[in-house]
Parts: sequence; C-alpha cells; structure tokens
Amino acid sequence: MYVDIGNALAEEASPGISRDALERLDTQVAQAHERIADGIANHEHGYAALDLPQTVDTAAIENAVAPFDDSEAVLNVGIGGSALGAATIADALDSDVDAYFLDNVDPEHVSALLADLPLEKTTVNVVSRSGTTAETLANFLVVQDAMESAGVDWTDRTFVTTGESGPLRTLSDRHDLPSLPVPDGVPGRFSALSTVGLACAAIQGHDLDELVAGAAEQQAKLSGSLFDSPAYAYGAISYALDVRGASVNAMMPYAESLETYSEWFAQLWAESLGKDGLGQTPARALGATDQHSQLQLYRAGPRDKLVTLVRPREYDDTEIPETEFDDLAYLGGKGLGTLLDAEFEATEASLSAAGRPNVRVELDRVDERGVGSLLYGMEAACVMAGELYGVDTFVQPAVEWGKKAARGLLGGGDFEEADAVAEKTELLVE
Amino acid sequence: MYVDIGNALAEEASPGISRDALERLDTQVAQAHERIADGIANHEHGYAALDLPQTVDTAAIENAVAPFDDSEAVLNVGIGGSALGAATIADALDSDVDAYFLDNVDPEHVSALLADLPLEKTTVNVVSRSGTTAETLANFLVVQDAMESAGVDWTDRTFVTTGESGPLRTLSDRHDLPSLPVPDGVPGRFSALSTVGLACAAIQGHDLDELVAGAAEQQAKLSGSLFDSPAYAYGAISYALDVRGASVNAMMPYAESLETYSEWFAQLWAESLGKDGLGQTPARALGATDQHSQLQLYRAGPRDKLVTLVRPREYDDTEIPETEFDDLAYLGGKGLGTLLDAEFEATEASLSAAGRPNVRVELDRVDERGVGSLLYGMEAACVMAGELYGVDTFVQPAVEWGKKAARGLLGGGDFEEADAVAEKTELLVE
Repeated sequence: MYVDIGNALAEEASPGISRDALERLDTQVAQAHERIADGIANHEHGYAALDLPQTVDTAAIENAVAPFDDSEAVLNVGIGGSALGAATIADALDSDVDAYFLDNVDPEHVSALLADLPLEKTTVNVVSRSGTTAETLANFLVVQDAMESAGVDWTDRTFVTTGESGPLRTLSDRHDLPSLPVPDGVPGRFSALSTVGLACAAIQGHDLDELVAGAAEQQAKLSGSLFDSPAYAYGAISYALDVRGASVNAMMPYAESLETYSEWFAQLWAESLGKDGLGQTPARALGATDQHSQLQLYRAGPRDKLVTLVRPREYDDTEIPETEFDDLAYLGGKGLGTLLDAEFEATEASLSAAGRPNVRVELDRVDERGVGSLLYGMEAACVMAGELYGVDTFVQPAVEWGKKAARGLLGGGDFEEADAVAEKTELLVE
Repeated sequence: MYVDIGNALAEEASPGISRDALERLDTQVAQAHERIADGIANHEHGYAALDLPQTVDTAAIENAVAPFDDSEAVLNVGIGGSALGAATIADALDSDVDAYFLDNVDPEHVSALLADLPLEKTTVNVVSRSGTTAETLANFLVVQDAMESAGVDWTDRTFVTTGESGPLRTLSDRHDLPSLPVPDGVPGRFSALSTVGLACAAIQGHDLDELVAGAAEQQAKLSGSLFDSPAYAYGAISYALDVRGASVNAMMPYAESLETYSEWFAQLWAESLGKDGLGQTPARALGATDQHSQLQLYRAGPRDKLVTLVRPREYDDTEIPETEFDDLAYLGGKGLGTLLDAEFEATEASLSAAGRPNVRVELDRVDERGVGSLLYGMEAACVMAGELYGVDTFVQPAVEWGKKAARGLLGGGDFEEADAVAEKTELLVE
C-alpha cells in the first residue's frame, strides 16, 4: 500500500493541512504509536488484531477446511464483521469456487439465493462469535431446512466459526462439525485476516500465506512517524482533515474488484470511530462510474469531503478496437485500463483544481498480497485515527439498544426498548 | 409511496423541524410548486421529466424491442443516468431474462463479464445521449469485437438508445439497427421512466404500463402542500433538515431488491443538488445488514445525518424453522420478514431514542407499480429540494473539467486541464 497525501496539503486544498501542522501531527502520531505498540505487545483487546500477521495459523485454517475441497460454492452465513472481510477477499480475487453471502434477512432474497445454489456441492460457513446473532442464526436455520428438503445432509456440508461457547459451539460439538474458533481480542470488523475472514478464502483456494504476508509488510512499517508508515499516514491525514471540516470520507476505488472493500472500509470506519459525537462518515463510490454520479457533488458541493482514490498499479488490460468514427478515434488501440487510469488522474486533478482534498492509495496489484496489505493498512489507519480522536475504537455500544428492541418485539424477552417502538410520532403523507 | 416525517420533528430529533417551521416551509413549497407546475406545462428542460407519465410511449418501446424477444440476457452499455435507472428496475423486479451492466471501464471486469455471457442470446442496449461518452463507446467497441470473435453478428443483437445526432445515431442509421431516441428535456438522472430506463425493462418482460401507472399516481399528488404530496414532503423535509445540520442523507432500504435504487438515488441527489457549495451528501446503507456496520455512527456520531428508512408493506415471507436452542426459540416459526420488520422498527426507534432524525418511506410492494411510484416520487422530491435550495437542478457543470483532462491525457485534443495533471503535488509514504 502506497499513500500519497500531497493533495491534502493546505497549499492545495481547503480543508487541508499545512506542512507545519503536519509536523505537529507527526508528534501526536509518535505518541499514539507507543500506545498501539504496547497494546499489540500485551495482546490487549482490539490491538491484538494488529498482531494477526504473527499469530494467525494459516495451516490450521487450511487443514480445517480440507474436508470441503470438493466445493463448487461456499455460502457464508454471517453479518457485519462476520461477512465483510470474507466478502472483500472473495470479490477481489478470482476463484473457481463461487462465494455467496447471506448477510441479510430479506425473505425473498434468501429463498431466491437458496433455490439457485447447488446445495450438495456448497459448503456453508456459519460465522458468529456469540453464536446468538439473530439474523445469522435465523438464516442458518433456513439453510439447514433447505438442505434437508434437497436431500443433503447439512452436517456434511457445514463449517462453523464461533467463540468458545454458545449455541453454535454446542451445535458444532453435538454434530462433530469441523470448526474454528474466533480469536480472542479481535473485534469482528478487524477479523478479516483471522479465522473469520480466511476460512472462506481457503475454501476458495486463495493463498492465505500471501494474504498474511501483505499484511505483515504493513505491520513492519508501523513506526513513530506517519512519514514512514502508509497506514499511519492515511489514518492521521483522515483525522486531521475531519477536524478541519472534511466530515465525509468518500472511498472511491478504481477497480470493480474492490467495490466490496469499500463496504468493509465503511464498517471499519463507522463502527470504530463513530462515537462521542465524533467520527468521519464513510461514503462509498466507484471509479470511473461515479464520476457520472457523485463527482459533481464532490467538486462543487460543500467543502466537507475527503475523497480517497484507490487503484492498482498493475492489471491485465483489454484493448479498445479501432473505430470508424473520427470523434472517437483517440480511443482506438488504447487499453480500457489506460482509459481508466486517465480518468483516475483526471478526477484527482479535477478535485485539486477545485481545492478539494484528496488522497491517493495504490496497491501493486489486486492479488492476495495487495489485498492483505490494503486490509491491514486500513485497520492500522483506523486504530491510529481512533487514538487521535481519543475514542474507544474497539466497542460499538450504540447498536445494543436496537438489538434489545427487536428481540422484545419478537417475543424474546421483556425489554423497555420494545415499548418505545409503539410510541412513535406519526406524521404520514400519503 | 408513503412518507412519514414524524421522526424528523424538532420534538423528536435534533436537528429537527418544529411544527411552526413546517407550516412556514409549506408556504415555500406552494411557491415552488407553482414554478414546477409551470415548468411541466411548458416542457422546460428538466421539468419535462416530471411529465413522463403523460408523454412516454410504452407501446413504442415495446415494439422497438420486439425483435429481441428471444433474449436470455440483456447487456446495458451505458454509464451514470444511462445505466442506473434500468439497473434499479432490473434489480428490483424478477425476470427470466438476466440483465447486466457495463457501466465502468475496468479491463479485468469487462473481459470477465463478456467471457461469461451467452453472446448469441444476449441483446446489447447501448445508451448514450451524445453518442460520444468515452466509457460507453469504448466498452461498446470491446463488446462488438467480442461478438465478432464469438461468431455473432453484432448488428443482429444491438439496440441503440441515443439522441438525434452523433456517432451512435450515425451507426444506428448505417446498420439499420433498432433504436429509440432519448427524449428532449430529460436529463440522464431523470430518465429512468423514459426510453433510457424502460427499453431494458421491456426486454426483461416487465410491465411498462404498471411502472408508468405507479409514477402517474405520484404525479397526480403534486400539489401546493407538502402535506398532500409524499414526494414534496420528502424533498422539503430533506432540505429543511440539511439546512439545520443534517448534511448527510443515509438512504437505507430494508430490501435487497432495492440496493441499486440507493445508487440511483445517490446520483439523483448528488448531481442535482451538489452545487454552489450546497447539497446533501447521499450515503448508501442497507437494512438490516448495515445495523451491524453503520448504525453505531448514525446513532452516536455527529448529528449531521438524516436516515431514510425504506420498506415494502407487503412481501413473500419465508418461515424460520423451530430450533433446539432455548436462546433462539423466539425466532422459531416466525418469518424472516417478521424479523426484518422488527429490525426496521427497532432501528427507527433506536435512532429516535437518541434524538436522530429519520424518515420512513414505504411502498405497497416491490413490484412495477411500487418501483414506478418510488422513482417518480424521489425525482419530484429532488426537484422540490432544488427549488428550495435555489440551485440549477438539471445541470452538472463540475464534471466537465475532468472529462477534458481525461480526453487530453488520451491524445484526444489539446486541453489545458490535461497539463494540470502533470503538476500534481506529491507527498508519498511507502
């Protein structure tokens, strides 16, 4: 991962950070790094995720999924951090084994997906740390039922990723299902490079060691200066721009294969930093497509955005044929990738010409190493930003209220939150 | 479309609007409605889009695509407003004809998609008003080439939607291709209910008249009061909340089939309202999935968001089987849809309990009529918001700079914008 923050300087953009302020920020980064390094060394909750390149056991993951090497498809049943890491890897990398994700309880979508899958050749990876996540368990019950109806023994096709106890652990023990533990100290949104994200990748045949090696490269660069660590540079500049007014972070990869990465980033950023009235709002965009959708706003709307432009430096190109039309002759014989790169650089310059801050993030390539580097880099960036904001990066207390209310509405216990639902103020226009 | 703005009142939320201020806003709505009604009556640029339920010729569209009634797939080649309307309809509604969209110039994605399609049974709908859009024409050249390589005569499988002149119109005339015109006065992002969005829907076998009827229902409700028009209520409340601090509009449908609708909405909102330093930033979310991702931020982050919760009132449900685990017994025998509805109401109440403004938008069902109603309703909402902001809703001048720069970089002419690209300030951390 390479991070270029030149277009976020105050000499280029407003909001922007002056070179003097960047030096002062670097002093804060050094202090924050000490805290992070201590957290990693002591395997503290959350910080332990940044040590996954050292602690994850890829051979154990590969062994655990070995019974499923006949899979034509893998179906991940999980939600939030139990789905997005695996989905990011699956959508970034090619595989002959298709990956599907049941990360929502939309009844029409669930039944349509299950009707299309070759269930006898599908491996189900059900993922929930607690083993009680309502959406995940409800979907898993529906999947079990669909397999039984199709004459497939679901115990032959199910792989469990869960904590040390809870219903899923009990189920796994009772039916002697292959399983892996969710590692301690690693919150869901930081678990892409653990058993949670890598089991699916292993079933798809991806090279786990290369994914981890990409992450390890970024870990090795964590240091006391943002000028030496792309991850810290990204986290620190995002924080600095937010407090100067860029309250939105538009994540805009120029690669279809990284579209799900933006969803993963949005969870990482929102759930880690969105607390105490603070936190930059992630917005998802895709280059070049969203130049024809969001760019008007980014360039001419409120000065409240940082645009993060992401691209691979290398890719397999496809040539544009010559054309009979003079107006379009300039495209003929060039690569689609050349066009995409021109659009990337034109958009970047277009934002800067309007004084809008932007940051360039590049990978060598969208392959295992590149994706591992990007995922780890953004996790470390997020932890650095959390230190600078002074928030508790690794918790998500604000989601509990709604969970209780939903459970109460469904008859799963008495919760005063459920009573509040009935008191809604209505002003209906129809 | 039904719009409930009760949870956006100042008695419920901050930012929020008082009932007195809502009455004053309604006076502005009445004035804006007069301007809009005049624009519609005189078929003025942009406003003409709101008269499409009266002016669109669905029989002509169905006749024009009749030669393609053997299609197994339709491939839309377009970008921005030339893709998102059709994609929204395609992803919302079931069809035996699969729809695919080439709306980006990612070389690896384009070649992978073309390798997978049954080209001899695929109808290509190439869409560009000017006929010169670089991404669309480059992709179309690649598609022509792929068809020729596969032994398919592309002139047998191509349907053109374009303006009265330009390279695509010339091509269409030269090869006697079936084609439809892009209607005058209808900007791309307002063209879902015209030839631009409906040709693809017709090839997929959807009921165009029902789509238009849903839109007509909303048109009939456009009136001088936000209390009588769901569309105006939504546009006016979004504007009022933005100027009170809700600079982000998180669009969160509780239906997988409406995920692309959020992308369509994001273009509509961003490109129409994002100018003169104004405009609410659209953020895309999906219920219930993003409760496990974005909700922490929406509930506990900065008070800068309006959350728009969208759902169908009716759907086909899927029952959750009974389970052996006491912890989960409350789920057994209920529908996944019941769970999803409980999550919707719990999230809505959760936001209100934290004083965060939210608006409920409901459809009867995600079918042709419901989708037509939603698309038209949001377009009229956007036009109303544009009047209230006082911006020029129907232009997108800020995207021109980048187009010139990209064209210059690709050798398509001398543009000073291209020279600026070379002058980038670099501060690279690697």
